[in-house]
Formats: sequence, C-alpha cells, structure tokens
Amino acid sequence: MTKTPDSVVRSFIDQHQAGFLADLADWLRIPSVSADPDRAGDVRRSAEWLVAKLRETGFPVAEVWESDGLPAVFAEWPSGEAEAPTVLVYGHHDVQPAAKADGWDTEPFEPVTIGNRLYARGAADDKGQVFFHTLGLRAHLAATGRTAPAVNLKLLIEGEEESGSPNFGALIRRQAERLAADLVFVSDTGMWSETTPTVCTGMRGKADCQIDLYGPDSDIHSGSFGGAVPNPAVTAAELAAALHDGERRVAVPGFYDGVVELTDRERELFAKLPFDEDGWLRTAKSHGTQGEAGYSTLERIWARPTAEVNGVWGGYTGPGSKTIVPAEAHLKISFRLVAGQDTERVEQAITDWVAGQLPAGIRHEITFRAATRPCLTPLDHPALQSTVRAMGRAFEQEILFTREGGSGPAADLQDVVGAPVLFLGISVPSDGWHSINEKVELDLLRKGVEAAAYLWGDLAENYRLPAAGR
Amino acid sequence: MTKTPDSVVRSFIDQHQAGFLADLADWLRIPSVSADPDRAGDVRRSAEWLVAKLRETGFPVAEVWESDGLPAVFAEWPSGEAEAPTVLVYGHHDVQPAAKADGWDTEPFEPVTIGNRLYARGAADDKGQVFFHTLGLRAHLAATGRTAPAVNLKLLIEGEEESGSPNFGALIRRQAERLAADLVFVSDTGMWSETTPTVCTGMRGKADCQIDLYGPDSDIHSGSFGGAVPNPAVTAAELAAALHDGERRVAVPGFYDGVVELTDRERELFAKLPFDEDGWLRTAKSHGTQGEAGYSTLERIWARPTAEVNGVWGGYTGPGSKTIVPAEAHLKISFRLVAGQDTERVEQAITDWVAGQLPAGIRHEITFRAATRPCLTPLDHPALQSTVRAMGRAFEQEILFTREGGSGPAADLQDVVGAPVLFLGISVPSDGWHSINEKVELDLLRKGVEAAAYLWGDLAENYRLPAAGR
Ligand SMILES: [Zn+2]
Ligand SMILES: [Zn+2]
Repeated sequence: MTKTPDSVVRSFIDQHQAGFLADLADWLRIPSVSADPDRAGDVRRSAEWLVAKLRETGFPVAEVWESDGLPAVFAEWPSGEAEAPTVLVYGHHDVQPAAKADGWDTEPFEPVTIGNRLYARGAADDKGQVFFHTLGLRAHLAATGRTAPAVNLKLLIEGEEESGSPNFGALIRRQAERLAADLVFVSDTGMWSETTPTVCTGMRGKADCQIDLYGPDSDIHSGSFGGAVPNPAVTAAELAAALHDGERRVAVPGFYDGVVELTDRERELFAKLPFDEDGWLRTAKSHGTQGEAGYSTLERIWARPTAEVNGVWGGYTGPGSKTIVPAEAHLKISFRLVAGQDTERVEQAITDWVAGQLPAGIRHEITFRAATRPCLTPLDHPALQSTVRAMGRAFEQEILFTREGGSGPAADLQDVVGAPVLFLGISVPSDGWHSINEKVELDLLRKGVEAAAYLWGDLAENYRLPAAGR
Repeated sequence: MTKTPDSVVRSFIDQHQAGFLADLADWLRIPSVSADPDRAGDVRRSAEWLVAKLRETGFPVAEVWESDGLPAVFAEWPSGEAEAPTVLVYGHHDVQPAAKADGWDTEPFEPVTIGNRLYARGAADDKGQVFFHTLGLRAHLAATGRTAPAVNLKLLIEGEEESGSPNFGALIRRQAERLAADLVFVSDTGMWSETTPTVCTGMRGKADCQIDLYGPDSDIHSGSFGGAVPNPAVTAAELAAALHDGERRVAVPGFYDGVVELTDRERELFAKLPFDEDGWLRTAKSHGTQGEAGYSTLERIWARPTAEVNGVWGGYTGPGSKTIVPAEAHLKISFRLVAGQDTERVEQAITDWVAGQLPAGIRHEITFRAATRPCLTPLDHPALQSTVRAMGRAFEQEILFTREGGSGPAADLQDVVGAPVLFLGISVPSDGWHSINEKVELDLLRKGVEAAAYLWGDLAENYRLPAAGR
C-alpha cells in the first residue's frame, strides 16, 4: 500500500484524534457565554485557553486581543515563503447561553460522547469548527514535512459573535494592518447534510430600517373623523403592501440595480441538492411557500434579495375595540441583499421610495441601522476551487454548493481586509445551533480536520495572488 | 302686543329660568361618573335625584330602573288622547370622569356661571340636554293650557353611556313593552355652532372586527427563511392596504350594497354649512384630508361608509432590530356604516373577502364585536319637519342639517322600539365633551327648552301615525 499524501494525513489524524477530542472537551467545559455578564470571566478564560493551545500547536504568535467588550484571539504563523498567499481564518470562541433546565438531555457544559456524536454547547457553533484547524494544520505539516504552513496563516477568533459582534467592526478596523490577508476563510457555517457535503459560496447582506409614521397629533375618534383624514396605520399597511409587486419582487425602483444573477451552472448545482420541500417547511415551521416568481425556494433564500416586515405596530392593540384613527404607526423592515447591490444605494432607493409613497398629512421618519454587505465567490474562483478539492479529498464525494441566507459579521472582514470571503465548515442542520442538545458529528468533525489539512497546500500550489497584489 | 303661543312660552321660561338653573346646578354637583366604581353611589343618587325632579315636574310615573350595572331612570306621562303619538326621549345622567387636576379652571363638580356659560362636568353631555326637557314640558303645558303633554311622553335616561352602555341593550330588551313608542328622540348630540343651528338627521352604524393572522409556528429567522415563506405581518399589511381601492372606496365586494345615497337636497344643505377646512383639521388634529373620491369632507364623515384600521401589531416592536419572520400579526378594523347597509350582510361580505385575500400558509381568525345599526331620517319625514319647525321657532333662523359620524347606543333603541330615531340637541363643538372645562351656552340651553316646548304640540298636530299603526 503506497503512502499517498492523503493516507499520511489520515493516519496522522488517527494517531492524534483522542488527544484532539480531549482538548476540545476541555475547551467546551468553559461556559464562554458572551450574552451573560456573569460569564465574562469564562469568556476570557476561553480566550486564554485557546491562546495556550495555539502556541502548543506551533503558532509563533498567539495573543488575546482586547476589544471594547469581550476578548478575541489572534494568532499568526508565517509560511516563510515569499510567494505564499496570506489566509485569515475567522471563527468565534463564545457560545450561546445554555442550561440543562432548558430541556437538554445532558449538562451543556459537560461534553458527552454518545455514539458518533459529541454533545455540548459550542460543539458545532463554533468551538468544534475552530478547533479542527489545529489538528488540520498539524496534519498538513506532518504530511508535507514542513515546519511552517504552506500559506501565511492568521486566525481571528471572536468573543462576542453570539451577542451580535457589537465591538467587532471597531476591533478589526483598529487591527486592520495585522489582519491584512489575501483570502478570508470563515469556519462558522455548515453543509447541506451528513450525506451531502457542500461548500458555502456567499452570504446575503442586509439593510435594516424603522419607519415612523405620524398622522393626527393624538389618537382621534374614528366616528368623528374616520374616512376624511389619512390614518397612519393604513398608510403603514399600504407602504408595507407596496413593498412587493404582483410577482413578489421588491417594488422599490432601483432595488435590483447591479444584482449578480444566478448563473445557469449555479442553478443546476443547487437543483442537485436533495431538497425536500415538506421537510424544509417543517424546519421553517411554516405552512406554505411564497416568494419571488421564477425562483425556487433555495434560490429565494440564498441568491435573491428580499424585503421583510419584521415588526409593525400602531393604534389600539388591547382587548376589545377602540374606534380611533391612531396618531402614529411604525414599521421595522429589513432587506436581504445579494452580491452586486450597494448598501448605500439601496438605502437611498428605499428612502426616496418611502417619501414618494405617503399621502399628504402623514409625516415620516426613516432610520437605518448599520448595513451588512453581501459576499459571494464565483464558482470559478481559484480559492473556491481549492476549497472544493480539499473537501472532495476529505469526503471522497462530489461537493455541491450552498449559500447562506443570513448576514454575518464576516462581511465586515471582507470590507476591512478587502479580500474575498470563503467558507469552510462541516456542521449540519441537525447540530442544534442556538438550541438544546447541540452536538457535532464526530466523523464530520474529522472530515473538517482533513479538509483543513489539504486546503493550505492546495492554495499554496494553485492560488495565484492577483497581479495588483498586496 | 298680542300674546302668541311662542311669547307665552318665552315669558314662562323667563319666569322659571332661575329655578331651572338652580336645579340643574344641584344635579351637576352629583359626580355621577359611571366609569369610576367608587362613584356608583353617586350615579344612583343622580338617578334618584332625577326621579324626584321628574315627579315634581308632573310625570305620574318616574322610577329608577335597575340594570345589570348602574341604574337608569324611566318616566312616563300619557297624553290622555287616543290618537296622540308616543315619543321616547333618550339621554343619560352619568358623566365622564373629571378632576380639577386634569387642568380644569374650576372644580368640575362645582357648577360656575361665567358670563353666558355654565361650567361643570355634564353641563352639555348630557345633564343639561336632558334637563331642558323638564322646563320645556312645563312651558308646553303652560302655553297650551293642557294638564298632560300633547304626546304620550316617555323618558329613558341611561346611567352607563359614558362607560360604553354595557347593559343598555339587555335593559331595553327586557323593558321593551314599556318602551313602546312611535318616535325616539335622542337628546345627546349637538348643533353645527352657536350661530348655525342645525338638526342631526342620522348616525352612522358600525361593524368592528379583529383579524388574527398566523404564519410560522414561532418567529423564524428572516435570513434563513425570509423571502420564501409568507410573513403574516406582510399579509396583514396587504390585507389592510387592499381595504381601499385607488379612489379610496372600500374594496370589499358587496360592501356598498343598499347604501342610501345622499340626495341632491342634502348635499346642497350640507354645502350651506360654513365649513372651514383648516379649522376642522385643527379640531381633527390632522394635517391633511384623505377620503372617498367625489365627496366632501362632511359627506365623508357623515354620509359615507368607511373602513379604518384602529390597531395593528405583529413581530418585533422593541428598540433596535430583530430580523424575524413573525409568527403572527393582528389587525383591528372598524367599519362605519350608513343607512341601507345591513350589518349582518356587511360582516359576511368582510368575512368572505378576508378569506379570499390570504396566501397559502397563512391561517386566520376573524372575530366581530357587536355591530351597531346606522339610523337616518329622510329630510321629508314629518317628525323631522316638526323638529325643524320647533327649532326654527326657538332660534328664529334657518335650521340646517348635520349628521353624526359616530355610532351610539341610541341605535339599539331603533332596533328594540322599532321606531325612527330623531335628534334634539343644542350643544356646540366648543362645549368640551369628555374634555376639560365642559360648559353649556346658557342662551343655547334656553333655546333647547324652547324647542322642546314647541315640539310636542307640533308633533301632535302634524305627525300622523303610520297606517299600519302600533
Ligand atoms: Zn457561530
Ligand atoms: Zn353623552
């Protein structure tokens, strides 16, 4: 039996798997719940634990990075080769709150292995997916005989992702120089399923506003005045209803400007995913599909921009009735954006459109929260091809593609680092992120280790820095 | 100088005005606030005071009527003539809450006369307008030399009107036999203004519903699922927006079935009212008009059916944002109805329409509260003509017409008594109903006494019972 590079990686992992899992279990025992102020010490302990472990792995630089909130971890291991690309891996070491009383079968911060699964808060989101890089990197070195990774490797492991990353933007802007990279890899997403390994190629962006509508100076009697003055609750409804046309496209002029359309190849590959609409509806806890004409459900949530009313309120909402024309009404509306849409132009288009929709006698204010840019890697991007090859060697199966419908802080990295964002993750929908009984599938975790072990070499070999260079 | 019947009435009033006002002040001192449980004893005291006063006026029957809540007063004085019509006068003896601390210039339950105005809670709404009937009736007897009124007179003075008349419907159904009448006169409305005396010819009715819309079984993430499943907040908005067409007519099929259109004469007379739109907008605390195409503001609020969203809520309504597709959304919608619309048919039309508007995947419930029927007296109705003549003799001016945009418990009387509802009132918009510094204009109050004094004789002379009789 010839020793292929892959078989070397596999036997290295076999040898070190037990220690790797024991270490991960140690980390999972630290309840680094960023949302709980009482756990701030644990979040710090988690950061310090990781720094020590990264030093042990071989990183010459590994440090706790203070933010204005809870600490992040940064590590760096230069390749030593002039032409090597620089890769920044993003993940987070904080976790969602969890308590056995919420309905867990086991103690969430006492990792337990049952069959092929490791149960603990953070097992998949995101400690497991951060940690596979440590053994992956060691396997990469072992299999290649190198003393440093084939790429310049940087790690940024955030400590407040589960609290909405309130200080992340400021941190990375402050540290932009040290974060400089050619590629960003996010290890905080998942795959289609246990049996259908996939690579995520993009995340939607987001614009997010509140619209406050003011009519009469106070609630007035609908018997005396109704039908003769504009009612802000009706205006709110008419505005929200006008958001979509009859094809359920967003009706704001200019909204679709620049949208990167799905390619035939992407649609073809999405269609190969074993999508079960009934099962998906159960996951969505919904009882019907509705969306933009001409697109499948997956295309709608991954690749099409949308508008959603997240909240609406106005007038009397108590028991019984109160026949008023209310003084005000309010809408919270968020827009998911896809590659090619410019968040500022979209916000301007929305602002202009809203102003043009309102009847005389209704005053309004519109306030936007910070927008998130979309990110997308084309299927023919060489770094994406490296990722697919690394995953393919680990899974020995065709790798398909997904996208992420949500919007993450990783998009901030795209802006600050100015590099494309790619995704490497092995979690699956059944892993129970943010829910009870979170787990990671141990054989998938091992595939993650393996893919990470192959990725750096493949990138060093095949990824050419853009001519304009760093 | 010849003694006309009118001059007899006037001198009688002159003679008795002081005592009449002293009595009214006594009644106004009783804080009969039906909404305040601590004032239940005062409401009873007010009823007993009125019973005593009506007996003193000459009513052979005057009694406290117990309801399931606070007591009403009933009185009856038969004419003694076989062909005389029976008239039931409606008013209420309870009042809105009031305290000097709310911003009154005087103590609300210490009546004070300043110039031509009597200030007190209930001065106009409704004790003053109930009480003018006592002196009016005495003047009628004095001027005609009768010992009993020219019509069979009944009074029903409610004790819970300001609390929404929760027990009124049950009370009048229980007492339907004793309330039998050919005509109902409501003395609980007002006129256009001090200088433009008017008679109200109708009140709008009301249908009133809550629509509950259910989408996902719980709030779901709008990044993961938004744009592919129906969002009940969007559905609520689309439903509320679809209520009106481009002409701002109510778009529910069948809604306008049977609507009694304004006659040319009514539109002509409405147009003679000195309507100042800017002033009206100030009263409406609104900053623009909006309503059904082809109708004036007054026509819209008095004579056209409408749909208003009184309340809407769903999803996240707190600070910041929460990117969800909410599990549910709710609408409170009320419809004002005009003569010719059948409340049950309207409710059925709304129910059918709503069901047909919803996308697959949205479940709904619709709940109606008790509807109120509209009432309207045509301009050529003989009882209305008697009213106009009585008002014309009192005011020595042309009497114009208004309608009431709201919906009152009086409409219940129309149903139970089965008689047309007419209106006799002298209050004006500046009287401050339900507000601070409520007052009645003393010269208008006197005109009310006078009109009441003329009305019964005119009716006895000119109102012929319908052939189908009682
Ligand atoms: Zn995560
Ligand atoms: Zn009243």
